[in-house]
Amino acid sequence: MLARPLSPLGLLADIESGRTSAAAILRACGDTIAEAEPIVGAFEHLDFDGAIARSHDAAGPLRGLAVGVKDVFDTADMPTSYGTQIYAGHHPVSDAAVVSMVRRAGGVVLGKTVTTELAFFEPGRTRNPANPGHTPGGSSSGSAAAVAAGMVPFAIGSQTGGSVIRPAAYCGVAGYKPSFRILPTVGLKAFAWSLDTVGLFAPTVADVAFFAAAITGRSLEVTAKETAAPRIAVVRTHLWHEATGEMRAAIDTVERLATAAGASVVSVDLPGIFSEAFAAHQVIQDHQAAMALAYEMDNHRDLLSPLLRDTLDYGRSISVEDYDTARRTVRHARLALRDALGDADVIVTPSATGAAPEGLASTGSSIFNRLWTLMGVPAVNVPGLHAASGLPLGIQVVGHHGRDGKTLAVANWLEGVLKAKS
Amino acid sequence: MLARPLSPLGLLADIESGRTSAAAILRACGDTIAEAEPIVGAFEHLDFDGAIARSHDAAGPLRGLAVGVKDVFDTADMPTSYGTQIYAGHHPVSDAAVVSMVRRAGGVVLGKTVTTELAFFEPGRTRNPANPGHTPGGSSSGSAAAVAAGMVPFAIGSQTGGSVIRPAAYCGVAGYKPSFRILPTVGLKAFAWSLDTVGLFAPTVADVAFFAAAITGRSLEVTAKETAAPRIAVVRTHLWHEATGEMRAAIDTVERLATAAGASVVSVDLPGIFSEAFAAHQVIQDHQAAMALAYEMDNHRDLLSPLLRDTLDYGRSISVEDYDTARRTVRHARLALRDALGDADVIVTPSATGAAPEGLASTGSSIFNRLWTLMGVPAVNVPGLHAASGLPLGIQVVGHHGRDGKTLAVANWLEGVLKAKS
Repeated sequence: MLARPLSPLGLLADIESGRTSAAAILRACGDTIAEAEPIVGAFEHLDFDGAIARSHDAAGPLRGLAVGVKDVFDTADMPTSYGTQIYAGHHPVSDAAVVSMVRRAGGVVLGKTVTTELAFFEPGRTRNPANPGHTPGGSSSGSAAAVAAGMVPFAIGSQTGGSVIRPAAYCGVAGYKPSFRILPTVGLKAFAWSLDTVGLFAPTVADVAFFAAAITGRSLEVTAKETAAPRIAVVRTHLWHEATGEMRAAIDTVERLATAAGASVVSVDLPGIFSEAFAAHQVIQDHQAAMALAYEMDNHRDLLSPLLRDTLDYGRSISVEDYDTARRTVRHARLALRDALGDADVIVTPSATGAAPEGLASTGSSIFNRLWTLMGVPAVNVPGLHAASGLPLGIQVVGHHGRDGKTLAVANWLEGVLKAKS
Repeated sequence: MLARPLSPLGLLADIESGRTSAAAILRACGDTIAEAEPIVGAFEHLDFDGAIARSHDAAGPLRGLAVGVKDVFDTADMPTSYGTQIYAGHHPVSDAAVVSMVRRAGGVVLGKTVTTELAFFEPGRTRNPANPGHTPGGSSSGSAAAVAAGMVPFAIGSQTGGSVIRPAAYCGVAGYKPSFRILPTVGLKAFAWSLDTVGLFAPTVADVAFFAAAITGRSLEVTAKETAAPRIAVVRTHLWHEATGEMRAAIDTVERLATAAGASVVSVDLPGIFSEAFAAHQVIQDHQAAMALAYEMDNHRDLLSPLLRDTLDYGRSISVEDYDTARRTVRHARLALRDALGDADVIVTPSATGAAPEGLASTGSSIFNRLWTLMGVPAVNVPGLHAASGLPLGIQVVGHHGRDGKTLAVANWLEGVLKAKS
C-alpha cells in the first residue's frame, strides 16, 4: 500500500511550534520518494538538494513545505518538457505565474510531476499509489499520485476537461479546480485557452483550501467557515448511465448521509441546454487546441501521439461557425446554471465514472468533469469513499462561480460526514 | 517623408495576375527598409534571406507577403526579447499561435518589430515615419511604424490598454483590435491576461480586414459588405476634455461628413458605470501584471524600468477584494453597453487624445482606448484625417462584441467618406 498521504496542516503546526523543520520534512519526503517512486513514477524531474537549500529561506504561510508542479508549467530552474519528446530537456526562461505565487507563499518546488502528453490523454508512466495496476488518472497524473503517496504535501495541476478532479478521485486525495481566472495560467502550456484552469492537490479538503488561500491571498481556509446544514443539489446528469454501479450507490450514500447530518438535499435534473453545453466542450477544446498547438502540428507532427494528432486534425476541421455556435451555447448554459441550481449552495455529482480503471493504457474518462470546467465554476474532489476493491471513489462538489470559499467549506463538511460514517 | 504605405490588396492582385512575385515584393520591402530603418527603427530583428526562401513555399491567401511581428510574440526561428534586456537573445522553442496562423495563411515573417518594455510604456527606439521627431505610439511601436513606412504590408501587435489603436492612429495606418478571443494569445508574453488582445496593422481598413480574414478563416473582408447608411453613435466619453482641439474638431468633422454621406448619427453620453469601468481597467491590469510578471519582479528587478517596477509594485499592493470589485464593475459595464448603444451599429470616438506627441520619451496616452479593450469589443483605427502639422489624426470605430465584420465594414465606409472629402 503506497497510498499514505501526509498531513500538511499538522506539519505546518509542527514547524510553527518548533517540533520539526521544513528541511526535516523535506528529508522525510525524500525517503518516501526513494521508496515509492520506482513503483509510482510520479516525477519527471526532482531537485532534492535545491529544495533543501531553498527551504531555509522560505518565508510565508507554506513555511518551506514541498510542492510538486505538473510538468506543463514553466520553471526557470528545472527542465519542463510538457509531457512530450518534442520538448525533452527544454529549459524555460521564466517561472509560470502560479509557480512564482507558490514561491512567494513560502512553498518549495521539489520537482516536476508527470503529465500526459501536452496535458491530453496519452498516458505517462505514473501508477496509482492505491493500486499500481491501475491508472492514477490524467492529465495531472504525477501531481495526484505524489500527494496520495505522501511524497509531497501539495501539488499543482491543470484541468481542461477533467485533469484535476479525476486523478484526485482515482488516487483518493482532495483536488480543487477554482473558478476560472482565480489562478493565472500564464506560463502554463496552453491546450484550450478558454478552458485551461490551474488546480491544486492536497491530502484533504482543509489542506487544499489552506494551500489555495496561501498562494492567492484569498480567504479560502475552511476552518472558520459556517457550514452547518448546507443546501445540496444532487445532479446525476444525462451521463448517469455511464457511472458504475458502485459510483451510483456512492452518490446515494452521500445523499443519505448528508441528509442525516442536517443538510437540505434535493435531486436536480439539469435542462437540455447542459447536454448541449457538454457537447460544445469538445468543439471549443479541439478547435482551440488546433490553434494553440499549431506549431507542434506543423513542425513536429511525427512526435505527436496518434491520439493527439487525430484530435488536432479534427480540431482544425471544425469551422469557425460551429465554434461560434458552441461558444453561444456555453454563454446560455452559464446563465441557465444559476436558475437550475435555485438556492442550493453546491452540486454533488460523481468525480468520475467510478474508481480508477485497471491498466495504464488509458487515464480514464473526463465525462463527469467537462461541463463544470466549461462553466468555469469551482469544483472539489472529496475523498473518503471506496469501492469494494479498496480503490478510492471520488465525490465532486461543484459551487457557484466565484463562490469558491463556500464550495470548499461544504466540501470540507461533506468530507467530515463521510469520515464519521465510514 | 518616410510614411508611404504599400497597397497589400493591390500587391496580391499583382501576384495573382503574374505581374510580380512575392520574392520581388520582399526585395522591394528590403530596399525600403534599407533606406528608412536607420531613421524609423521599427525592427528588433530581420531575416530577409529567410523570408525570401520561405516566400517560395508560401501557400494561402497571403501569397508570401511579408508580416512584421511584434517582439512580444514567440518565434522559434527568430530571437524574441519582449522589449527587455532580461530576455536579450532569448530563442523560444515554439511559435506563438497567431504566428502559426500567419504562416498557415501564406504570410512570411520578415522580422520582429520593436515593442516597448514588456508591452508597457517604456519606449523603444522607434520613430514616427510621418515625422521622426514624434513618437510612433506604443506599445506596438515597430509594427505600426513598419506598416506606415511601407517596410511591410502587414504587421501583428497586441493591446492591453491602447497598444494597437494608438500607434495606428499616430502613424496613420489601419489598426484592428478584434473582439476578445477571436485571435489566440498563446505564445504572447502576458501582461494582463484578461485584457491582452492580439491586434493587426495594415495600410487601410480594407487591407486589415483582408489580413484578419486570411488568418482566422472568418468572413471579415469588407468588399462584399452592405455598408450603406450605417447607424453611428458618437461617444465623446467623460475624458473629452483630455482631447486636443484638433481631435475634438476632427470628431465634429466626422459627424458632419458621415451624416452628409447618409449615416444616421447620434451623440451618446455614456452613463457613469463606464467611468467606473475605465478606473477598473487599471486595477485589473496592474493586479494581473503583478502576477504575470512575478518572475521578473522577483528575479530581475534591477533590469526593469522604474516606470514598470513602480507599476508592478503598485499592482502587488492591490487587494483581491479591490480586484474582485473591479471585475464586477466590468461585468456590469459589459451588460450596460448594449443598452447604451441602442440600435447603433458602431461607436465613433477618438483613437487618441490627438496627433502623435513630440519627442520619444513617452508613447502617448491610452485613455481613449482602455475602456474598449476592457469591454472586449472590436475597435478599428480609421486613418485619413490630419492635424495642421501634417501628422495623422486617428478616428476610432468601436463595434458590438462579436460583430467584427460589421465594425470593419463601417470603418471601411467611413474611411471612404473621409478620403472623398479630403
